[in-house]
Parts: sequence; C-alpha cells; structure tokens
Amino acid sequence: MFLLNKSFYLSILGTKITSMINVNEYFEGAVKSLAYTTIQGRSTIGVIEKGEYEFGTSSHETMTVIEGALQALLPGEQEWQTFTNGQSFEVEANTSFKVKTNVQSSYLCTYK
Amino acid sequence: MFLLNKSFYLSILGTKITSMINVNEYFEGAVKSLAYTTIQGRSTIGVIEKGEYEFGTSSHETMTVIEGALQALLPGEQEWQTFTNGQSFEVEANTSFKVKTNVQSSYLCTYK
Repeated sequence: MFLLNKSFYLSILGTKITSMINVNEYFEGAVKSLAYTTIQGRSTIGVIEKGEYEFGTSSHETMTVIEGALQALLPGEQEWQTFTNGQSFEVEANTSFKVKTNVQSSYLCTYK
Repeated sequence: MFLLNKSFYLSILGTKITSMINVNEYFEGAVKSLAYTTIQGRSTIGVIEKGEYEFGTSSHETMTVIEGALQALLPGEQEWQTFTNGQSFEVEANTSFKVKTNVQSSYLCTYK
C-alpha cells in the first residue's frame, strides 16, 4: 500500500471513468452515440442527422426512437416503415438495415 | 459558381455535419451528452456514471430517465426522489439540483 497524491489519483480515476462511456461517431459525424451497460446488457443512445444510412449488425438490436422520427428499411422488407417517439423495431444479428430521417432524431439501441 | 472537387466538398460537408451534434463532457467524463434540436426546442441525451453530481440550470429542464435509475435532490426539497425508466422531473431555470446513481444511467433532457 502507498499513498497517491490527489492529482495522480484523479488522473487515474479520470482515465478510468472516461473509458466507461464510449463516444462513437459514424458517417463523418452524422451519427453519434454513447455506449454504456445496464444489468440487461449493452446499450447505446445516439443522435442521427437528416439523411439516409446503412448499418450492419453484429448482434440482435432493438432500436427505440426517443425524439424525432426514423424510417427504417428492415432486412427482407420492401417497404420503409416509420417509427416515432417510443416506437421500436428489432433487427437480427449479422445483417444490415437502412435508416433515414428528415429531422435530427435520437434513439436508444439495446443489444442481446 | 464553380465546381469543387469531391474530397473538398466532403471535407466542408463533414465539418458542417460534425458541428451539428455536439458532444459534451462533464465531471472528468463521468457525464457525457449529445446535443441536438427538435421542433420543440433543444434537447440532450446523456449517460451518467455511478456517483453524485450537482448541475446548474440556465433554462427550464425536463429530465426523463431512459435506462437505469436516477435519484434527484430538487431545489428546495429535503428528500431524494428516485426516477426510473420513463419517469421525469422538472427543474426551473437558474437554479441547481443534485443527481446520484448506483448504475450507469441514460437520460433525455429537454429545454424550454
């Protein structure tokens, strides 16, 4: 055991804490998200700029619109569906889906 | 009018888009948020690490828990109140309030 001076301790603590909420950016910053963990598993919350985007999945995802509106073209579907505040859609692992929006929109994504 | 080459155009576009979703960090990265705008006004979504924090307000805020649980000590109150998924509390402008949590928690904050 040894004593650390306060600034060294805060530096370690700061580094540790900073790494626990990961900031991710996609599509030149047009999509940004914050990653964290709950007792149910991994989650991200994010914001999507106006535009159209294609995402790949490595695990099962449930996306819920927080604010705004997302249109989603889900795997195997021919038609875009619209999801607004509180509405969700699910996407299986190892596939891809498209999302488009006309307004800045926020979402929750949970993984399993 | 003049033509821009594609990479220059993307560089301009990238810069513009990047500035539209602002990433904010507080308390050495223990609280991180993404700021955006809806037709109702300004919003942020954020994640809070385990710990206790004091926030000041410059405008009226409505905070809604997305996942996890927040305890809040609101202005003028003596007792901490607990808020979980989907539950909200409001804070007036130009005051301060405390939040604590035992688990990584996500929130939506809307301003008016």
